[in-house]
Amino acid sequence: MVETRRQQIESAASVLFRERGYAATSVRDIAQVLNLQGASLYAHVASKEDLLWSIVQRAADRFEAAVAPIAAADAPSPERLRSMIRAHVGVVTDDLGNAVSFLDEWRFLSPDRRTAVASRRRAYERRFRRVIAQGVEGGDFPSDTDPRLAATWMLSALNGIAVWYQPHRELSPEAIADRYADLFLGGLTGPADPPDRPRLDPPRDRTRRTDP
Amino acid sequence: MVETRRQQIESAASVLFRERGYAATSVRDIAQVLNLQGASLYAHVASKEDLLWSIVQRAADRFEAAVAPIAAADAPSPERLRSMIRAHVGVVTDDLGNAVSFLDEWRFLSPDRRTAVASRRRAYERRFRRVIAQGVEGGDFPSDTDPRLAATWMLSALNGIAVWYQPHRELSPEAIADRYADLFLGGLTGPADPPDRPRLDPPRDRTRRTDP
Repeated sequence: MVETRRQQIESAASVLFRERGYAATSVRDIAQVLNLQGASLYAHVASKEDLLWSIVQRAADRFEAAVAPIAAADAPSPERLRSMIRAHVGVVTDDLGNAVSFLDEWRFLSPDRRTAVASRRRAYERRFRRVIAQGVEGGDFPSDTDPRLAATWMLSALNGIAVWYQPHRELSPEAIADRYADLFLGGLTGPADPPDRPRLDPPRDRTRRTDP
Repeated sequence: MVETRRQQIESAASVLFRERGYAATSVRDIAQVLNLQGASLYAHVASKEDLLWSIVQRAADRFEAAVAPIAAADAPSPERLRSMIRAHVGVVTDDLGNAVSFLDEWRFLSPDRRTAVASRRRAYERRFRRVIAQGVEGGDFPSDTDPRLAATWMLSALNGIAVWYQPHRELSPEAIADRYADLFLGGLTGPADPPDRPRLDPPRDRTRRTDP
């Protein structure tokens, strides 16, 4: 697919925003990467913030398009969560610059736009929270699970991937997603007691290790 | 304890670095918060980067002092991990500005200093990795655990707390630490199979749910 000039600019900008942060990236830096004069960049872009706004919007669209249909599907909660984790990791690793813009750099938007993005981010997190809550109702996760904290926990770890992931290293996005899904789902079903530690508090309705 | 002028400046700077990011904070902003002229601030501070450097060093000291003795103690791995999680959450929530500087904003340091901090961060992460690896050796965690990925997973979620935590909300740092420790340790001991999903791959050496 041939990228328009505007798409090229957004793409270069999102890479710099990830590497240096939005605040430390100038319009001149973006122009330089594309071998453009600052002035000719402004023919395509109203402002640096306008670029961030486009990038963030597009990234939010992609996260939602990947995750919303799975969240709404008719499947057991743990299975939906696992697929949502895979979908989220897929969007993050497919375009790291976009992901970081939606996950971190959006805070540099002007107040109105920041409010709009914060509300999309909350709606996105709510999908995870709701599927976790449904898993609690359905008996897949213990009754003392805090779906709000669990969703925050999950998305914090997932979003870290956008910072440390390097393509073509030993772990593929699919392998990362599968191992993370195992870790998250294990976390939600609950910790085993270490065999040699006496518990002082009454045992909770959680999975126990049965093998040594 | 009476803070020196330098400590007041570092403290004000770290709050602004967390709220706006290092790159978007000027020396003038820091002076303004303290009702100082920029010029008189420079009597105490060589540069903005110098402030970040001090803050990051002090934060690194605190994380290490809190976690290193626990990591080296003679106790079962899951118990040590739980205490390390508590200690880490304690340092993060005790001084959010310091924590964010060590966890995120350090990337804005000059190359030499950045290299030094990156190496301290790796050493810190290695402590978690080593305790997880010891848990695998000791049979507390499944043999297919990837200690490196598991430590990254854990620290990513823990570091997110520095961004979303607000003092005096419903959850105390201790409650957050305990719930996170449950989630992490459950993740490390492994997920239960959802009861109604057939597994296509052979079952692994992991905890299973025994209750419906």
